[in-house]
Amino acid sequence: MFTIIGERINSSRKEVYEAVKNQDKNYIQNDVRKQQEAGATYIDVNAGARIGHEMEDMMWLLEVIQDAVELPLCLDSPDPKILEAAMGIVDKTPIVNSISLEKERFDPMLSFLQGADCDVVALCMDDSGMPISAGQVFDRAGRLIESLEQIGIKQGHIYVDPLIQPLSTDITKGIMAMESVDKVSKHYPDVHFTCGLSNISYGLPQRKILNRTFLALLMAVGLDGAILDPLDEKIMAIVSTTETLLGRDEYCLNYINKVRAGEITA
Amino acid sequence: MFTIIGERINSSRKEVYEAVKNQDKNYIQNDVRKQQEAGATYIDVNAGARIGHEMEDMMWLLEVIQDAVELPLCLDSPDPKILEAAMGIVDKTPIVNSISLEKERFDPMLSFLQGADCDVVALCMDDSGMPISAGQVFDRAGRLIESLEQIGIKQGHIYVDPLIQPLSTDITKGIMAMESVDKVSKHYPDVHFTCGLSNISYGLPQRKILNRTFLALLMAVGLDGAILDPLDEKIMAIVSTTETLLGRDEYCLNYINKVRAGEITA
Repeated sequence: MFTIIGERINSSRKEVYEAVKNQDKNYIQNDVRKQQEAGATYIDVNAGARIGHEMEDMMWLLEVIQDAVELPLCLDSPDPKILEAAMGIVDKTPIVNSISLEKERFDPMLSFLQGADCDVVALCMDDSGMPISAGQVFDRAGRLIESLEQIGIKQGHIYVDPLIQPLSTDITKGIMAMESVDKVSKHYPDVHFTCGLSNISYGLPQRKILNRTFLALLMAVGLDGAILDPLDEKIMAIVSTTETLLGRDEYCLNYINKVRAGEITA
Repeated sequence: MFTIIGERINSSRKEVYEAVKNQDKNYIQNDVRKQQEAGATYIDVNAGARIGHEMEDMMWLLEVIQDAVELPLCLDSPDPKILEAAMGIVDKTPIVNSISLEKERFDPMLSFLQGADCDVVALCMDDSGMPISAGQVFDRAGRLIESLEQIGIKQGHIYVDPLIQPLSTDITKGIMAMESVDKVSKHYPDVHFTCGLSNISYGLPQRKILNRTFLALLMAVGLDGAILDPLDEKIMAIVSTTETLLGRDEYCLNYINKVRAGEITA
């Protein structure tokens, strides 16, 4: 099953920023109910935009969201203190987003994750910056996976983020991401993936067709999850259609049911 | 560059059947002009539907089409006699569609192709029927390629058709086709491909989203051509979008130009 981490509750989005600032519970709850309805597996919660308020905003969002939906949450912050506080109030096992090889984040995150009951996103970033080759993504993913295993987090609880980069700056970034996912998924078959798909189309027009076509290409080499907007019907249709094309839909029943429900149109 | 063989001039389509029967030159010429305008690389010409009239219908179609467009043609018939006659009246080097390993077709086609100035579709069919595994497609493609090479047709003039089969009868047929293209393209890097894409969705609803998503998946493993309807704007947009995602579009210029021309929309 493909993991859909609903990306909408991010205070860098203007509507969410306002809703958080004004404690507009209805706005947030309506939004997450729609994400759940549309098929999200997790709700990502990012409260980073109001500088100096991340802790209180995150706490408020978690309470409000958990009152509205049953879904588990993806706790999205670079700050281990905020993640630790968030972990204390979530009802269901969350995904912690994220650990990376950046010195400031790696050590505190490792000590926080030791013994914690959660899944974790392993971001293939280190202090030298973004990866420049599939080999480097593979190497960074490997170091993160091994470090996490050493503190007891099994591969099946790790979501590798290969860090998708824009085609507009380097036309080979699409192939690089595909090779990265291919290598990691073959070498670590139990590991999961997530990615911020829309980075691929940064700086280009009509971005959504690039994003969703790229999603199909990544799924073919092993991508089994992404952070995306579950209210985007076309990208959700591509997820189901690609699952069917890749042979993961016995008798095409899921595809046929989604067509009947009006969720997939040609 | 992706080869688009425009599929519309096929007398099994009702409108074309009528146009051929009534010698409606305008209908055919308008259609092929539109295919050329939309970006077809070749025009496929199939006159098989009016039983007993294939020879005269093919000759009429070729004349009418060549009066209207500059494009080279893909001569589509199982009958070597008709292909030979067609070869005699085409202006530009055509693709001959097709040779297969079926006994009735293989020997006559080989002797016809000896010394002929044309490209050729190698259909991975034999007398036992459709291939049942990627290994079998690879084996059949290899036998056709070697036979064609022995009579002087170089790999760069061969279009392998892996024979796409419906997901509705066997959910693994998508992966099988992808593995087939992957194997053949890796082993014979100069060989080209074509395929009848829409077979993948036979028996399923909302077929076009399956067809075009599958096209992207096949392009990622090496498919560089297909028989399709160039007037289907969404499938043409997927061809360009996928080329860009696969790194074959310097500075994304082709993508950006097609967006500006209104040919790609999100």
